Amino acid sequence: MPTTTVRHAVLEVLRATGMTTIFGNPGSTELPFLGDWPNDLRYVLGLQEASVVGMADGYARASGHAAFCNLHSAAGVGHALGNIFTAARNNAPLVITAGQQARSLLANQPFLGASEAANFPKPYVKYSVEPARPEDVAPAVAQAFRVAMQRPRGPTFVSIPVDDWGMAAVAPAARTPLGDMAPDPLLLMQLAAALAASARPVIVAGPEIDEEGAEILALAERLRAPVFTSPFASRLCFPESHPLFAGHLAAAPEAVSAALAGFDLVLVLGAPVFTFHIVGECALFSGGVALWHLTTDGEAAARAPVGMGVPGSLRLGLPALTALLPEASRAAPPPRIRPPAPPPAFPLPPGHVLARLHALLPPGTVVMEEAPSHRPAMHAHLPFEAWGSFFTMASGGLGYGLPGAVGVALAKPGTRVVCLIGDGSLMYSVQALWTAAQHRLPLSVIVLNNAGYGAMRAFSRVMGTRGAPGIELPGLDFSEIARGHGVPAARAERPEGLDEALRWVLTSDGPALLDVALDQGVAKLYREKDEA
Amino acid sequence: MPTTTVRHAVLEVLRATGMTTIFGNPGSTELPFLGDWPNDLRYVLGLQEASVVGMADGYARASGHAAFCNLHSAAGVGHALGNIFTAARNNAPLVITAGQQARSLLANQPFLGASEAANFPKPYVKYSVEPARPEDVAPAVAQAFRVAMQRPRGPTFVSIPVDDWGMAAVAPAARTPLGDMAPDPLLLMQLAAALAASARPVIVAGPEIDEEGAEILALAERLRAPVFTSPFASRLCFPESHPLFAGHLAAAPEAVSAALAGFDLVLVLGAPVFTFHIVGECALFSGGVALWHLTTDGEAAARAPVGMGVPGSLRLGLPALTALLPEASRAAPPPRIRPPAPPPAFPLPPGHVLARLHALLPPGTVVMEEAPSHRPAMHAHLPFEAWGSFFTMASGGLGYGLPGAVGVALAKPGTRVVCLIGDGSLMYSVQALWTAAQHRLPLSVIVLNNAGYGAMRAFSRVMGTRGAPGIELPGLDFSEIARGHGVPAARAERPEGLDEALRWVLTSDGPALLDVALDQGVAKLYREKDEA
Repeated sequence: MPTTTVRHAVLEVLRATGMTTIFGNPGSTELPFLGDWPNDLRYVLGLQEASVVGMADGYARASGHAAFCNLHSAAGVGHALGNIFTAARNNAPLVITAGQQARSLLANQPFLGASEAANFPKPYVKYSVEPARPEDVAPAVAQAFRVAMQRPRGPTFVSIPVDDWGMAAVAPAARTPLGDMAPDPLLLMQLAAALAASARPVIVAGPEIDEEGAEILALAERLRAPVFTSPFASRLCFPESHPLFAGHLAAAPEAVSAALAGFDLVLVLGAPVFTFHIVGECALFSGGVALWHLTTDGEAAARAPVGMGVPGSLRLGLPALTALLPEASRAAPPPRIRPPAPPPAFPLPPGHVLARLHALLPPGTVVMEEAPSHRPAMHAHLPFEAWGSFFTMASGGLGYGLPGAVGVALAKPGTRVVCLIGDGSLMYSVQALWTAAQHRLPLSVIVLNNAGYGAMRAFSRVMGTRGAPGIELPGLDFSEIARGHGVPAARAERPEGLDEALRWVLTSDGPALLDVALDQGVAKLYREKDEA
Repeated sequence: MPTTTVRHAVLEVLRATGMTTIFGNPGSTELPFLGDWPNDLRYVLGLQEASVVGMADGYARASGHAAFCNLHSAAGVGHALGNIFTAARNNAPLVITAGQQARSLLANQPFLGASEAANFPKPYVKYSVEPARPEDVAPAVAQAFRVAMQRPRGPTFVSIPVDDWGMAAVAPAARTPLGDMAPDPLLLMQLAAALAASARPVIVAGPEIDEEGAEILALAERLRAPVFTSPFASRLCFPESHPLFAGHLAAAPEAVSAALAGFDLVLVLGAPVFTFHIVGECALFSGGVALWHLTTDGEAAARAPVGMGVPGSLRLGLPALTALLPEASRAAPPPRIRPPAPPPAFPLPPGHVLARLHALLPPGTVVMEEAPSHRPAMHAHLPFEAWGSFFTMASGGLGYGLPGAVGVALAKPGTRVVCLIGDGSLMYSVQALWTAAQHRLPLSVIVLNNAGYGAMRAFSRVMGTRGAPGIELPGLDFSEIARGHGVPAARAERPEGLDEALRWVLTSDGPALLDVALDQGVAKLYREKDEA
């Protein structure tokens, strides 16, 4: 059996699995891996580990393929854990490795030594190991790849002692990827019968549809059923100008119950049942409505408080289900009426800015969004149509969007990427601007700047609280910050010139940032405390 | 028994324990705690959680009193975990709380819900809990304070569901702080006898001395023993111009063994035995030398591979030990000769810049350092004298120094604080500049800018590696970045004008940043691979 080093065995695993872009931030415990870096692998440096993991997540989700990260022992993993949490909620397939001190030093708490290294990233990794022997490192990386890619996808972790890299090892045999599991055909037949007998079915579509490339259009059209998107979906769930599109469910039990009231069968596809942000009575769960739940995430199916769970791949399940269904004879529901765009005004209304962006967005653009308080305006005025054209995060953890957008741009050379981001959000991982500049990515960063944590202002009304500190963000100049990272920048404050500024940022050669000063009116995210 | 709410009970605990400055970054799960914020508590906002925890650590260590953090559920805790690791290694007493989703939502993985919330920050917290009932929240915060303050100090964690704040509770009775444990008097007598019989004793002094305010000078002078500082000490261990000061031990087994060779008794005070960064043979451990180890950290005492451990407080132990010792009659060792400062040159030599800084540093200044590749130059040309005048981090985790300096400045109103930081280091937690600007802190940020990760360049020589990616950092303009955060900035490139620039940054009204472009010559941190 041919013998090589751990380092060469791991590099062979990276090549065999197609993980040829490496996202990292280096330290001394990673140097023996990084020295004599081979030309066929691309190393993408992030200046903080939250950016490193965010970039890898964007890259993995936009490419549909696991991305590889190399972090610095405990301190680097620690900085990364916010975005590892987000990667878990995003179902982003990641293989995250971290350096560890030399095995001979570990007994006596060395500098840079990680304590219980494999426990540290838990519970937000699907697999976590510090291999017992150097020769187990390359097989562990190969295993982490397979686990990360298995649905539901997610991050994995391998801790690698620094002295392992030069040790003798055997390169693991390349394995073909694992297949997906199909839903039980008998359950699909029962579901088809229930749908055929239903007078008023409704679909709730989730992000697994975009991830799997699953065929939902044929199913929805055959059923003539309205389609809502699931709360906090991390990617496009249904084309938002399609006549069957009914709108976005809010993450509130009352709102979900109200939107789905009057239907006699709720079909949830590729989303949890349901992701809630605020408490409340969920009349839907106690009303006895028939709920069917197709998802690749068996744990989410088990967790759902009501309904018939049908675990399995949507890619395999949706065409099979559609084939079992007769063409519905009912009238299609009336299409959703989107509100008219707000007229230009000073200060700039968010809805107006988003409507102008919608008008000017070049075809083929991919948008990454992290602007929580502007979700209602975005849902009204910036519909997305194409599969793979929209990403955000499912976790609620800010600091993902900007590096996520950088990762999308790295995964899709030649594609214009727009990062639509709040001023508060931008600051959590502002360091990712530098990586965008170094790689000259066609990235348009549009800061929806309301000079504060807008979602906190909105939430204060939902909860009926006043006088909370830490919500206002004065004194930040995003143009200077961007230029300091090597990204050209401009600011838009008035409706005159807005189109020109948007055209400038949308056609930049390399990254550019447009800081848009908005009306600071408070958005309505949920039912507010003083409403009857 | 008077009944109040969980929120008021926790606010009373904060007042009773003196944790009246709160470091935070808010989200919806913290709003019921933050609403109607009382005037007698100060809320300090950080724009990223690594900055929040770093500020709290600097504040706690400079004040000697636990600091309180309030973070945002899983995403905020995740971003914070790099600096929580550093706080553990720094023995920084912290009470870290985080929001959690409402108890009624937790069963079904809600938005912003933390899974296994109390496990997530492990293993780098001393105590971690999500209280079983709302009424247990305030007692848990009080308990976290006591555990954090007990030596060896460190971070603690309490996860608080959002709906707990309004529930009924009883404010816990205020408790007096716990006492310290003294070393076993019999062991101190045995140690005194060994020291009296020793011909050539040597002291290795650690950061617990500064933390405890322990009297090492009288002991060292009575013994006439040379004093080295322990590797990677997180604060001053001994006045560095004192005639008995012998230098800084490097974190390498061979270097420690060589420095301590020829002594017949090694007395390690308030530091581990020893913190190593690189592997090697530690001849000291196999040479049969008598090693005595006084430390407040019983775990570190147990972990030490050799020596007689004497666990207990140095504040109580050192005066007791000194009282048992006769005045030594041996000649004092010759004082350390510091090398002359390098002459002015272009590009600027780091040693020259640090020597000029030393000459110009106003009395009473506190320095926070995070510039790993400039440690040798700092040790040679920037000696510290006063207790509490120097801080750095013990973990190796970059991204602590800038927020740590902000925390020191908040803890010591009216004191000039200098943050001496590498360009790579600065970028991990650059967001802390904004907090310094908002609070108009007298903080002088001096960027020792070698346009790359200098420690990685140096380490490449130690390990004999070449061609590693991710080490060069071109294209960053720190002046623009600083101004974007509201901090005035200047750049120094030549020896002419260096003093003027240093004077400007050292006397700023509010924070200021000086970007010093340095000679990029590679520092020698350890024995290099190609040395004989």
